[in-house]
Amino acid sequence: MIFTKTEYLSRLSKVKNVMDQKNMDVIILTDPSNMNYLTGYDGWSFYVPQGVIVSLDKDEPIWFGRKQDSKGAMITTYLNNDNILGYPEHLIQAPPKHPYDFVTDFINENNWSNKNIGVEMDSYYYTAEIHNRLLTQCSNAKFKNAHLLVNWIRYVKSDAEIAYMKEGAKLVEAGMQTAFDEIKPGVRQSTVAGKIQNTLLGGNKEINIGGEYGGLNMILASGKSASASHLTPTDKKFNNNEGTIIELGGVKHRYHCALSRTVYIGEPDKKLADTLKVTNEGIERAIEATKPGNTCHDVAIAFWSVLEKHGVEKESRAGYSIGLGYPPDWGEHTLSIRKNEMTVLEPNVTYHLMCGMWMDTWGLELSESIRVTNDGCELFCNFSRDLHIVK
Amino acid sequence: MIFTKTEYLSRLSKVKNVMDQKNMDVIILTDPSNMNYLTGYDGWSFYVPQGVIVSLDKDEPIWFGRKQDSKGAMITTYLNNDNILGYPEHLIQAPPKHPYDFVTDFINENNWSNKNIGVEMDSYYYTAEIHNRLLTQCSNAKFKNAHLLVNWIRYVKSDAEIAYMKEGAKLVEAGMQTAFDEIKPGVRQSTVAGKIQNTLLGGNKEINIGGEYGGLNMILASGKSASASHLTPTDKKFNNNEGTIIELGGVKHRYHCALSRTVYIGEPDKKLADTLKVTNEGIERAIEATKPGNTCHDVAIAFWSVLEKHGVEKESRAGYSIGLGYPPDWGEHTLSIRKNEMTVLEPNVTYHLMCGMWMDTWGLELSESIRVTNDGCELFCNFSRDLHIVK
Repeated sequence: MIFTKTEYLSRLSKVKNVMDQKNMDVIILTDPSNMNYLTGYDGWSFYVPQGVIVSLDKDEPIWFGRKQDSKGAMITTYLNNDNILGYPEHLIQAPPKHPYDFVTDFINENNWSNKNIGVEMDSYYYTAEIHNRLLTQCSNAKFKNAHLLVNWIRYVKSDAEIAYMKEGAKLVEAGMQTAFDEIKPGVRQSTVAGKIQNTLLGGNKEINIGGEYGGLNMILASGKSASASHLTPTDKKFNNNEGTIIELGGVKHRYHCALSRTVYIGEPDKKLADTLKVTNEGIERAIEATKPGNTCHDVAIAFWSVLEKHGVEKESRAGYSIGLGYPPDWGEHTLSIRKNEMTVLEPNVTYHLMCGMWMDTWGLELSESIRVTNDGCELFCNFSRDLHIVK
Repeated sequence: MIFTKTEYLSRLSKVKNVMDQKNMDVIILTDPSNMNYLTGYDGWSFYVPQGVIVSLDKDEPIWFGRKQDSKGAMITTYLNNDNILGYPEHLIQAPPKHPYDFVTDFINENNWSNKNIGVEMDSYYYTAEIHNRLLTQCSNAKFKNAHLLVNWIRYVKSDAEIAYMKEGAKLVEAGMQTAFDEIKPGVRQSTVAGKIQNTLLGGNKEINIGGEYGGLNMILASGKSASASHLTPTDKKFNNNEGTIIELGGVKHRYHCALSRTVYIGEPDKKLADTLKVTNEGIERAIEATKPGNTCHDVAIAFWSVLEKHGVEKESRAGYSIGLGYPPDWGEHTLSIRKNEMTVLEPNVTYHLMCGMWMDTWGLELSESIRVTNDGCELFCNFSRDLHIVK
C-alpha cells in the first residue's frame, strides 16, 4: 500500500461530501489519476475503458475494467475483491459491442438508473461514445458534470504525498545532471534521452531511489525545434551554436516533480542570455509571491511585471498544479498561473512554475516545482537556473 | 519529412474516398496517430485539445491546436502555414471556456455548419464535452461516427512504414537482451527498467539506431504481479524463484515493434515450463496460419487448438494490429486475433501476436510482431522464445 487505508478513506469521505453538496448520488471516474487517488489502482490499462464508481450508498469505491486487469486491481488497491468488477473480453475493441454495455447493466442492476450520476465530461478517456451509451442505456438517470470534482480535492496535498514528490525531486535533479553531462556536439538526442531515462528510472548511487514513467514524456528539442513547446527527442545530433530545452519529471508512486532547464553548446548570443536572465528574475519574483492567501493572479503579476519591464512577451501561462499523474499529463488541471486567475494558494498546494519562452526561431525553458508552505513556499529542487554552457 | 509528400497525399486521397462513400463532407480527427498519419504532426501536446480536419473541399488537411504548439506543427508537418491554426491560450483549462469554442467558430466561418461532419466518437481524447460543444454550437450540422475510419486505412502498411517497424525491431531485440542481461536477484525492477529504456532509446553499438518513447510503457512484473496483465516496473527487487513478464516496444518515427518474453530466476517449476512450451507451440501454429486470405479467426483457431489439446485456458485475445501509435496505446484498434473475428489478412498487415498467460498467482508472456507477406508471413524479430533462466 502506497498510502495508509486511513488516507484513502479520508479522500473518499471528502469526495462523498462534495457529491452530497452537488446532489450527486453516484460518480463515475475515468481519469486514471482520480482512480488511483481513491483506490490506489496503478496499471497501464487506461487504453481500454475502465473506471472507479463512488456511490453514497456504498462504503467502498468500485473498480471496473477489463477482466484480465482485475488481477492488477486486486494487487494494487485496498478494495475488497467484491468491489473489483472485470468485464468480459469479447467487449474489447469489437464495435458495436462496448465495455459500457457491461457498466450500464451494472448501474441498472444496482437501482442507480433513476439517480443523479456525475461523470467527468472533459476528462481523459471519457469519450463521446461512452457518454452516449450511458445516456441511452440508463435513460432515467440524470447526468451531471463531475469534471475536476476529484481534482480540486487533490489540490491540497497530504504530507505523505509531498514526501513522494520530494523523492521525485531527487530523481529529476539527477536526470537533469545527466542531461548536462551528456549533451555534446555530434551525439544523438536519443542517446542522451536514453541516459536521462536510465537516471530518472534507476536513480544513481547517491540518491538510491527508483523512479517510474512520467505522465509526460521528456521534452527535449534543439535549435529551431526549441521554438516549439512539446517536441520530443529524435535521432538528430546536437550541434554547435544551438540551444536545447529540456523538461523532465521525476516520479515516485505516480507523484511528479518536474524541472526544466536550457543548455547551449558554444557561446550563447546576447538575446538568449538576456532573455534567460529576465525569465529568471521573473521566476524569483513569482517565488516571492507564492504564499498562502495570495492568488495565482498575484504570482502571475509578479512574474509578468519583470517581463514587461524588459519588453519580453510570453502569451502562455506560467504554471499549473502538479502532483499525481498518468499519461498524457502530469498537470492536475486545477490552478494555472496567469493573470485574472483568482484561485487562492494554500499550504501544501504544489505547482509547476513553468516558464517556457518559445520565440520565433529559438527557445528557452526554466521551471521549478514548488510547494506552498505555511508562510511562503519551498522549491522541491535545488538546481542552478543558470544557462548550462557546453564548450 | 518522415515520409514523402506523395505518401501523405496518397493517404489523404484514401481517406477522402471513404468519406465520400460514407457521405461525410468533413471529418475531425483527434486520435494523435491519425493526426500523424495524415500530416506528420509529432508532439506530446495531446494532453490539450487538438485535431486534424479533413474537408472534401480543401486540398490539405487543417491542423488545429494550442497556439504555442502550432510552431511544432510548422516544424513536423508538410502543411502550409495557412492550414495550421493555433487557438488562444486563454481557452486552456479554464472552464466554462473551451478550445472547441474556437473550433466551432472556425467550422461555422467555413460554412460547414450545415454539412455532414464525421467525428471519432470513441477515440482517445475525443471527450463527451467536446462532442457536446460541437452538437450545441454547430447545431445545423449532422454528426456521423468516423471512429476507426482512418485506422482501417492504416490497416495495410506501406513499405516505408514497414522499414521503420524493422528499425523498431532491432531496438526491441536489443532492449530485451538488456533485460535478460540485467535481471538478477536483489536488483530493483526500476534499475533494470532504466537500463532497458537506455537501450530502447539509445540503441547500442551494433545497431546504431535511435528510438523513441512507446505508445505503451514497458510492462514488467514479477512473481504474483506477473498474474496481472499491465503492471509496470516499481522499486521492488527481483527475487529467487520468481518469474518476470516483460513486454517492450521498439519505436522509430512512431512506428512500433513489440516483443514479450519471460525470465525466471532459479529452477522453474513444471507448470511454468509446460505452459510456456504449449504457448510456444500455439504461437508456431498461429504463425503458420498467418497468410493472405486467412482470417483472424483462422489464426485464433490454430493457436487455441494447441491450448485446448493441452487443457490450457486463455480468455483474452491473442493479438491485435500494431504500427503507428501514441500513448496510451501502440495497438491500432483494427484486427484482433480471436475466434469468430472474420477480418481477412492481406500483405503488409502487421500485428502483435500477444500470448499473455495470466494465471492465478503467476504468469508468462510470449509475443511476436508479424508482417503478412505475399505468401505467408515474417517475424520482425529473431529472438528465442525459450524461457530465459537466470541461475
